[in-house]
Amino acid sequence: MSAVAAAPKVLIDCAVPLRWRDLDALNHVNNGAFLTFIEEARLQWFGQLDGPWFGDAWMPVVAAIHVNYRAQLAWPGNIRVQLFCERLGNTSLTVAHRIVDATDAAKLYSDGNTVLVWVNPADGKSVGLPEAVRKACA
Amino acid sequence: MSAVAAAPKVLIDCAVPLRWRDLDALNHVNNGAFLTFIEEARLQWFGQLDGPWFGDAWMPVVAAIHVNYRAQLAWPGNIRVQLFCERLGNTSLTVAHRIVDATDAAKLYSDGNTVLVWVNPADGKSVGLPEAVRKACA
Amino acid sequence: MSAVAAAPKVLIDCAVPLRWRDLDALNHVNNGAFLTFIEEARLQWFGQLDGPWFGDAWMPVVAAIHVNYRAQLAWPGNIRVQLFCERLGNTSLTVAHRIVDATDAAKLYSDGNTVLVWVNPADGKSVGLPEAVRKACA
Amino acid sequence: MSAVAAAPKVLIDCAVPLRWRDLDALNHVNNGAFLTFIEEARLQWFGQLDGPWFGDAWMPVVAAIHVNYRAQLAWPGNIRVQLFCERLGNTSLTVAHRIVDATDAAKLYSDGNTVLVWVNPADGKSVGLPEAVRKACA
Repeated sequence: MSAVAAAPKVLIDCAVPLRWRDLDALNHVNNGAFLTFIEEARLQWFGQLDGPWFGDAWMPVVAAIHVNYRAQLAWPGNIRVQLFCERLGNTSLTVAHRIVDATDAAKLYSDGNTVLVWVNPADGKSVGLPEAVRKACA
Repeated sequence: MSAVAAAPKVLIDCAVPLRWRDLDALNHVNNGAFLTFIEEARLQWFGQLDGPWFGDAWMPVVAAIHVNYRAQLAWPGNIRVQLFCERLGNTSLTVAHRIVDATDAAKLYSDGNTVLVWVNPADGKSVGLPEAVRKACA
Repeated sequence: MSAVAAAPKVLIDCAVPLRWRDLDALNHVNNGAFLTFIEEARLQWFGQLDGPWFGDAWMPVVAAIHVNYRAQLAWPGNIRVQLFCERLGNTSLTVAHRIVDATDAAKLYSDGNTVLVWVNPADGKSVGLPEAVRKACA
Repeated sequence: MSAVAAAPKVLIDCAVPLRWRDLDALNHVNNGAFLTFIEEARLQWFGQLDGPWFGDAWMPVVAAIHVNYRAQLAWPGNIRVQLFCERLGNTSLTVAHRIVDATDAAKLYSDGNTVLVWVNPADGKSVGLPEAVRKACA
């Protein structure tokens, strides 16, 4: 019996239209803007969950992010942001991302991942993942 | 005789004042804003080099970035961004960063690194590091 | 014979999807983000012109902007930005804007206008409107 | 007896360091960034008030903004943002601004004003100016 690696679960795959203001003075989409695209997909995914992702005493924070820039992005242009569950831990969730061209998904602009933890804003201590997040990743 | 690991070379250590707009709807400094802080220090460092860092046929691009978020940042607040030469390669430069509190450098908000390459914008091909960059890191 | 005021000419009417990062710490779309929405519509309009809007010796700059905020904008949400030719002068163009709800155009979030001039970046002197801009507004 | 126009009251005069990311693809500070500079000065002023400026049932919103762009801004560069009480009404406050060069206050980059109202976020209705704001403007 051989182990079979399952394909990572797709959490969301959404278009994020570029804006001219995403360009910087070097005339390509700024490296920081990619985090906004990834965040936009993540927040849209949160909004689709079957339950709350955020409360008075628990909110998600980004613990780490790794971004590979595979190709330069120009404006105008159209991208899709794909998020995957890379690792579902007891107190953290690693979300992989791929940013691809909206008209040619084989054209990869960025991949990498984001480590999320949920904390109590009052003391910054980890509070475990919300049930709705856990269920969506399972 | 034993090998002694040298401390990484400090490239720049500069204050980057926070702005209220760096906060997001969760009322802490947004994860993407950290890349703008790191970029600001990097561009200030470029400006201090003893020679050009950018020309018609060669400009730096970010190939990868890794950011650890060690503590949440609030506004108002004062940070310093410290950049170090982590690895000087033939065609790439890895710049480590530390973001610390301006009044308590032991308080660490973020560490990580950025991989830079210089490319020809016309064809996207690597063109090697500018002499001024190489000299400043040596 | 009485004078009849012509309706202002519509230059573009385009969707500009909101991003979570457009929110600020007060949890509504930041006032500065509206200028990015207006700019996005303006640049998309420039891109549709029947001729160049920008060259080595002539580029548009914003001389003045007036924005009325008529209703608060939340995320998620969908807006359309409508631009109109309010006044076509010899050396300046006043572009009126309306930002409305994408699903209910009677819901107005913002109106106002932007005064544009084209200048020579070398000396900052006005250079007159590009022919393609003039034609599109006539 | 002659009327003597009083000079408008200075609310705050603070440095707002520019960032490279304030530049846009036309290589000058983006028009929208000016609103962030004005906002930064305003929020710093709020923070210096002798009492709260924000509560669960009352928060400031921008009702209108008028910005004249008098000269192009480059990076690196240093500016100061000066805010003045232009008009203190029963339910609104008009704050004039001047953005000047930090090393030559006669060099004007922008002037204009911002109309602020305080509203109840629950219903959007005006709630009158906070006492601390009124006192600081008197």
